[in-house]
Amino acid sequence: MTGRFDIEATDGAARAGVLHTAHGPVETPVFMPVGTKASVKAVLPGELLDLGAQIVLGNAYHLHFRPGADRIARLGGLHRFMGWDGAILTDSGGYQVFSLRDTATIDDDGVEFRSVYDGSRHRFTPELAMEIQRNLGSDIAMAFDECPPAGVERGKLEDAVRRTSIWAERCRASEPGPGQLVFGICQGGVDLALRERSAAHIVSLGFDGHAIGGLTVGETREAMFETTRATAQMLPARRPRYFMGIGDPEGVIEAIAAGVDMFDCVLPTRLGRTGSALVDGGRLNLRNAAHAEDERPLQEGCTCPACTTYSRAYIRHLVTQEEIVGLRLLTLHNLHVLFDLVRGAREAIRAGTFDRYRSTR
Amino acid sequence: MTGRFDIEATDGAARAGVLHTAHGPVETPVFMPVGTKASVKAVLPGELLDLGAQIVLGNAYHLHFRPGADRIARLGGLHRFMGWDGAILTDSGGYQVFSLRDTATIDDDGVEFRSVYDGSRHRFTPELAMEIQRNLGSDIAMAFDECPPAGVERGKLEDAVRRTSIWAERCRASEPGPGQLVFGICQGGVDLALRERSAAHIVSLGFDGHAIGGLTVGETREAMFETTRATAQMLPARRPRYFMGIGDPEGVIEAIAAGVDMFDCVLPTRLGRTGSALVDGGRLNLRNAAHAEDERPLQEGCTCPACTTYSRAYIRHLVTQEEIVGLRLLTLHNLHVLFDLVRGAREAIRAGTFDRYRSTR
Repeated sequence: MTGRFDIEATDGAARAGVLHTAHGPVETPVFMPVGTKASVKAVLPGELLDLGAQIVLGNAYHLHFRPGADRIARLGGLHRFMGWDGAILTDSGGYQVFSLRDTATIDDDGVEFRSVYDGSRHRFTPELAMEIQRNLGSDIAMAFDECPPAGVERGKLEDAVRRTSIWAERCRASEPGPGQLVFGICQGGVDLALRERSAAHIVSLGFDGHAIGGLTVGETREAMFETTRATAQMLPARRPRYFMGIGDPEGVIEAIAAGVDMFDCVLPTRLGRTGSALVDGGRLNLRNAAHAEDERPLQEGCTCPACTTYSRAYIRHLVTQEEIVGLRLLTLHNLHVLFDLVRGAREAIRAGTFDRYRSTR
Repeated sequence: MTGRFDIEATDGAARAGVLHTAHGPVETPVFMPVGTKASVKAVLPGELLDLGAQIVLGNAYHLHFRPGADRIARLGGLHRFMGWDGAILTDSGGYQVFSLRDTATIDDDGVEFRSVYDGSRHRFTPELAMEIQRNLGSDIAMAFDECPPAGVERGKLEDAVRRTSIWAERCRASEPGPGQLVFGICQGGVDLALRERSAAHIVSLGFDGHAIGGLTVGETREAMFETTRATAQMLPARRPRYFMGIGDPEGVIEAIAAGVDMFDCVLPTRLGRTGSALVDGGRLNLRNAAHAEDERPLQEGCTCPACTTYSRAYIRHLVTQEEIVGLRLLTLHNLHVLFDLVRGAREAIRAGTFDRYRSTR
């Protein structure tokens, strides 16, 4: 049963489904909060459950260096380590290897780079990325891919697609952990011919799910949405589709409309830590003096732990005084907004009213 | 009924009682977490309730400057502002005026000083301190006192006792808020003759409770305990006694043994934010590499939210990576230790076994 993806309803290209993992079912569309270093920043697992989280992300790159995936394995795996009994998806570290330092040197075997922690030299390969994720014991491991920034010349983009393909084969040949699903990643930037080539090869390898990587790396919103719509249709309907790194409400709704099932982004948690709230029609900067005596909640009608008890005035006070409770409340609110948005989309898809839902967000 | 203090049991000098406030009964001995800026650092009110907190502190000095006590009054008072429906005691700001800057100039009318926020010049008087606390709407307001550091010459200590007396009269003459109790503060350093003089005058003013101020300001532990024992007996048994600024487990137990009922200290929350846990026999520094693969909880047998789920290894990882959840877990644990210690003392006093309890802590 692990790995089965049941589609319960479709509405246009949008789908409502259930992905079965070793740590229970995940109802899609689903937003996955990012717990890079074995903690969704500022939020405890019990709070995530209360908000309705079903699956969180961990990161192979960061956990490999601190505290070490082998150490986490000795301590009983990532679920036990971080006290989270729901599903976990781990990033392979591909994105981090290429984005965190500009010193990476790449060949067909793997990538050499300097650790962001102490500058020491390291080599990541598809096999190592899979071994790290096996040690972490995540429910979903991601293939190791090359993720170039937007605007690179066609030759480099082609190289990235080719290497991502070779590496995907090697990831597929690696034994995953018990019950661990493995997702392949499609690259190709905003070049639809390359996307076609990448998708066809990745899909041929029989992964448990497919991700659209290499977007939200600097391209225009327009190109990003167009590429998402086209690429989603290149990936088989019977497997979950995952857009890596999108978390603004509009972007998530558009991706769902394109037929994408899974999303992750640091946006809601990072915005919270920098003093901003996601609200209807945009963002609220709580540092703004206009909120100093505003008794309203962050968002009228919101049922999150922040809005049911606290005023904008109080949260502004906490944020300006750098009280930890301020960023906690904003983080909870922003995560609630994402979960609520995606829950609403799921209900609308099941009711056949997704178009209307989309137009009112 | 507000203001009534029922003593349920005594055991030697130690007492178990109930103080009735406008926001409900407070069972003593009681530890009061410090919420200087309208937030117990890193902890939400719901978590405080779960830990068993009955009363928290707020600070008149800090809240006067940010966000302003008049503003908090317009927003419905401190309870509503911070979402805490239990009791609140507010510090008058005396301690902060004298300790936060070395530029305070004092006369019998009040103190002039520079704000720690922006360096601007301000004047605090007993009347202003009471007005601020009335605006905050705390359940217990503290008189405005002069709190000199340890080791000042006898003349200065005498001046402080004299001014604290004059100011206490002016605080007593100020109208408190509806249902607001007012506590007087006894000064005199470790000079028992001055303590006697200060206590006699303060007690004569008919406050709802009495505090021992001017300790833990640099004197020896020995002198502090001796002064506490002597001063507690100078304060009437029928009113609650409050030791300002003690929070280490040994110190709290010794103060309870001396007949003190209430305590506050930033120690448990501050230790948590700096990566340390209160454990049997001392403190655990979670930055220590020895904890890297230690699967044990912070304290064996502890029932706090951290110890029931997480290992030292995980908390060490969070602390070294500066994850907010790390300091949250340590803060919850340390507060639990204090609440648990004081709950245990209360039970022992009621059972007539406080001496044994004291000797086993």
